[in-house]
Amino acid sequence: MSVARALTIAGSDSGGGAGIQADLKTFQMLDVFGMSAITAITVQNTLGVHGIHHIPIDIIVGQIEAVVTDLGVDAVKTGMLAQVPVIEVAAHQLQKHRLTQVVVDPVMVAKGGARLLDVDAENALIKHLLPLAAVVTPNIPEAEVLIKSPISGLEDMKEACRKIHSFGPRAVIVKGGHLAGAAIDVLFDGTDFIELPSKRIDTRHTHGTGCTFSAAITACLAKGDTLSAAVFTAKSFITAAITDVLELGQGHGPTNHWAYAKNAKQGKH
Amino acid sequence: MSVARALTIAGSDSGGGAGIQADLKTFQMLDVFGMSAITAITVQNTLGVHGIHHIPIDIIVGQIEAVVTDLGVDAVKTGMLAQVPVIEVAAHQLQKHRLTQVVVDPVMVAKGGARLLDVDAENALIKHLLPLAAVVTPNIPEAEVLIKSPISGLEDMKEACRKIHSFGPRAVIVKGGHLAGAAIDVLFDGTDFIELPSKRIDTRHTHGTGCTFSAAITACLAKGDTLSAAVFTAKSFITAAITDVLELGQGHGPTNHWAYAKNAKQGKH
Repeated sequence: MSVARALTIAGSDSGGGAGIQADLKTFQMLDVFGMSAITAITVQNTLGVHGIHHIPIDIIVGQIEAVVTDLGVDAVKTGMLAQVPVIEVAAHQLQKHRLTQVVVDPVMVAKGGARLLDVDAENALIKHLLPLAAVVTPNIPEAEVLIKSPISGLEDMKEACRKIHSFGPRAVIVKGGHLAGAAIDVLFDGTDFIELPSKRIDTRHTHGTGCTFSAAITACLAKGDTLSAAVFTAKSFITAAITDVLELGQGHGPTNHWAYAKNAKQGKH
Repeated sequence: MSVARALTIAGSDSGGGAGIQADLKTFQMLDVFGMSAITAITVQNTLGVHGIHHIPIDIIVGQIEAVVTDLGVDAVKTGMLAQVPVIEVAAHQLQKHRLTQVVVDPVMVAKGGARLLDVDAENALIKHLLPLAAVVTPNIPEAEVLIKSPISGLEDMKEACRKIHSFGPRAVIVKGGHLAGAAIDVLFDGTDFIELPSKRIDTRHTHGTGCTFSAAITACLAKGDTLSAAVFTAKSFITAAITDVLELGQGHGPTNHWAYAKNAKQGKH
């Protein structure tokens, strides 16, 4: 059996709903072989992050090298990189191994609004990583940090896409979930805008939504889909995952990584 | 959607074929929500282990506590624990939280035959962890270490089951894959022996076989299966995973975690 291969460079979420756990589950459900370079171990559940252990740089580099040089990688996503040296070595590895199908999820702002990266790391991400991205996937608070300006509607989102695209990624998708009203995402490839509206789903079980969405794009790119096809599939995947909730945990529960496949089996796509 | 929950306490394999990666993929394919407490990060691919970073004890304990106290756990498996303090805190956590559906994969001997645990850790595993196990799943080299005696046939395997059972686990399965001839596994619950024969499959793609098998047992126990039903399913899962190879990597490639579900869809179970 021939299989596409995806690598996630991100943190570990013990709770299984976000981080490399969400990525590996998403890759698996989209028939892509998942591998990981873990940057940090978080002590985490649906109530929050209670501890963090950063992995030494040489071990992060070692994991990427081991995977790329032996098993091979068709697409990569980056999640929580957290520190300047991690961002720098990740960017270096992507260039060294000529990895071009790169999805950058710019994990910068926690659910409660707290900044996860210091200003140096935000700048390193913009300078070193964004120019290597096939697509970068900020939510509204992350896009606001990237463009240093508030976003309050669709026109602002489009302007943010233009500004972020000027940092070098081949495409940008700004996710509208944090705005009021329908959850419109805006995809911009430097020329055209595509608006992806979807019904707002009233649920607190959104832990790992961003990880899962970007992992689904990565899986589709690994299989050779075009970016717009990958984004459409990822939007269906995450919408299904948020709709059919698992009801786990006392806080923001994980999304349902089986729901998309279940819908497909029932002919719902 | 209601879902069973499983926790793996084990090492991370960057290559995605063994460790918590194999466990999470197996849980996912058997419809069980997977969570993890990572004990070590290995720099690993199909050619071997090229580096290892041990996670601090407080972060290991934190991961287990975060998961058990919030999301809840129906079954647990332990894999690479590597050091005496890790074995001790894992055993303490299992007792503290009254976790009884525990699958202990006594990871002790590497593919090439090298001992992964020192004698102190082997003894700690026997003393602290085996008495808490619903089932312990050694292969032949691991069973030989546990009973301090060579094993060369079916009668020796049964004797090993008896001896290991006397250390306290509720059941033992000694896996025969390392012996010549058919791959017979022997399950012993303290009273009866069940022999599980299967055709030997000629493949070098057996990386993570032990992790995957014990994870499949764990997933089934989490869903409420009896131990013998869980072991039968796990045997089918791993046989399918070894049969339909992925052909990844230059060494011992990973097994195919999709194969069992694919067979089910085709009515092969």
